[in-house]
Amino acid sequence: MFVILVYDVEQKSVAKALRTCRKYLYWVQNSVFEGEISEANLTKLKMELEKVINKEKDSVIIYRFRTTKYSLIEIIGIKKGGEENIL
Amino acid sequence: MFVILVYDVEQKSVAKALRTCRKYLYWVQNSVFEGEISEANLTKLKMELEKVINKEKDSVIIYRFRTTKYSLIEIIGIKKGGEENIL
Repeated sequence: MFVILVYDVEQKSVAKALRTCRKYLYWVQNSVFEGEISEANLTKLKMELEKVINKEKDSVIIYRFRTTKYSLIEIIGIKKGGEENIL
Repeated sequence: MFVILVYDVEQKSVAKALRTCRKYLYWVQNSVFEGEISEANLTKLKMELEKVINKEKDSVIIYRFRTTKYSLIEIIGIKKGGEENIL
């Protein structure tokens, strides 16, 4: 399935959350990730994320899509993050 | 069309960006918005956002989908933002 994941986590968890998400998804922008992922890997990703975020304060939102990908992606302003920037 | 919009803007522009996005889309979570929107309204939204954000520093990402909505949305951690929280 295709997923879009957005996180909003405390500064101290950002590096770990980023590393975790990048193992499974393409890093689009700052806190936004996307990609094709299997059900098994999505489960693993969620379990790993739950270990690195603070569930009382942080937030992760995952959109699942049956159809493959979106029809268009537009960016206004700067392109923060993305594959080329390694933290 | 159905869109998902995520912004990452400086603190001083957050309130204005939030107000602008909420005029056109449903506020899902902190910096995440979604909804059905016409091409005309999306153009208006983008023009209004360009006025309130700093295009040198801020970033807005818009996913467009031909098909209506996603098949599932999951939230890990807390639900930040959303319709019930008025800034």
